[in-house]
Amino acid sequence: MNTTSVSHSDLLNASAVEVRTAIRSGAYKGHTAGLAAGKLQCNLAILPQRFALDFLRFCQRNPKPCPVVGVGDTGDPALPTLGGDIDIRTDVAKYRVFRNGALSDEVTDITDEWADDLVTVALGCSFTFENALQRAGIPVRHIETGLNVPMFRSDIDLVPAGRFGGQMVVTMRPIPENQISQAQEISRRYPQAHGAPIAIGDPAEIGIADLSRPDWGDAVEIRAGEVPVYWACGVTPQNVLLDAGLPLCITHSPGHMLIADVAEDAETTILTNQ
Amino acid sequence: MNTTSVSHSDLLNASAVEVRTAIRSGAYKGHTAGLAAGKLQCNLAILPQRFALDFLRFCQRNPKPCPVVGVGDTGDPALPTLGGDIDIRTDVAKYRVFRNGALSDEVTDITDEWADDLVTVALGCSFTFENALQRAGIPVRHIETGLNVPMFRSDIDLVPAGRFGGQMVVTMRPIPENQISQAQEISRRYPQAHGAPIAIGDPAEIGIADLSRPDWGDAVEIRAGEVPVYWACGVTPQNVLLDAGLPLCITHSPGHMLIADVAEDAETTILTNQ
Repeated sequence: MNTTSVSHSDLLNASAVEVRTAIRSGAYKGHTAGLAAGKLQCNLAILPQRFALDFLRFCQRNPKPCPVVGVGDTGDPALPTLGGDIDIRTDVAKYRVFRNGALSDEVTDITDEWADDLVTVALGCSFTFENALQRAGIPVRHIETGLNVPMFRSDIDLVPAGRFGGQMVVTMRPIPENQISQAQEISRRYPQAHGAPIAIGDPAEIGIADLSRPDWGDAVEIRAGEVPVYWACGVTPQNVLLDAGLPLCITHSPGHMLIADVAEDAETTILTNQ
Repeated sequence: MNTTSVSHSDLLNASAVEVRTAIRSGAYKGHTAGLAAGKLQCNLAILPQRFALDFLRFCQRNPKPCPVVGVGDTGDPALPTLGGDIDIRTDVAKYRVFRNGALSDEVTDITDEWADDLVTVALGCSFTFENALQRAGIPVRHIETGLNVPMFRSDIDLVPAGRFGGQMVVTMRPIPENQISQAQEISRRYPQAHGAPIAIGDPAEIGIADLSRPDWGDAVEIRAGEVPVYWACGVTPQNVLLDAGLPLCITHSPGHMLIADVAEDAETTILTNQ
């Protein structure tokens, strides 16, 4: 597009609407960590309507990895409960298009992919509770060190629905032992963002062989006095969708989230209920 | 049925499974207030699959009146995430069967109505936060006086989905002015049970003409120093289903709830995630 491009630092004080506008125009194509502070950021899953009921059942049965924060009408790219002007075809900086269970394209606009039978599901993301941990003075290692959060396939079975099922993906953050109960209490306040930890301590207990070799993201240092703490991860629904082998399914690219107008600490994720 | 009948007081110390068993056998046909203390009780909506996606979208968009706590597979009367042995055809003491938007029958068993295309949706209920208010020493007038909670049609518009929409039904509880912020804080902790109040004070602001004439339930006294406080009500989805004029839809009868094995203060309403 013939648009002046903007950088992540140019957008640090921009509102949610301003960031979405920069993304929509093609001026910004980067990740959204740290942008539109205080606003809810969302994982994205777009799939054909005939799979949507089972996918919503799957999310309801697995609320910690798959907290639903918005669902569009079939064929409608708007998400008015998350933001008045959202057009899901253009308002995410980078999308992944999957066909028959395999990555087909990574694109910055899905207008050409959009179809009358598609349903958008927005899911909460860990940025929300990470911000709350940091505000409480609890260190978040991967942010401090400029890395991606380490993510691992666990052996925790998901509750299946239709063709959707498998095992939970978890993130790991090393937390000082004396701040673990505070970290639990804080993250539990955000059921729309994975809630309280799924497990604490020994990685073998949830089927993780080696914390220094994450399945996605970067390994982070666990210092003396720190304990690995595991939270349900938004990569879970992406993996489950991939394994389901849908003819078409579209997600955001990691780190390139949908930014909503909803406050991340609002009681509900519905604009009109606030 | 040829079963010895049991009374509400016979069941006061019974577990959730024991109460469901008494209901299933036909021995107990009464209301469930105060039974299986500490367990989640649920509103019930059973509808044909072709309406289920829109109904789940409707609930997602209106989480305070319609908090989804369980969804069954199509045609399957089990709800394993709420209780291992639940059979939704027999485990509620009284059901209302609606046909084409009108009450058709009130029955104690829906085995004859069950069909392969039906989907069960369980929704949270106000018993959960009322118990928490009482534990905190906040009076709940209708319980103290042995009445039903007063319920009112408000003018608060719901966010529509498909054929589902309308206005919110609210409950009213008079709360001493100096305990309102505590009541807000406590009920907000239960998003699966209507959450924090929707409105406080003047009934006219939410379209209620006369607090002494509830649309359902009983009027309760508002004493000196007390303020009327309004919460979203589980009658909302029942009303919305009725107005939608579905060919068939089944709900519980007021006060005759589904009792789950899930603790009412659990982080999620999913047995296997706890």
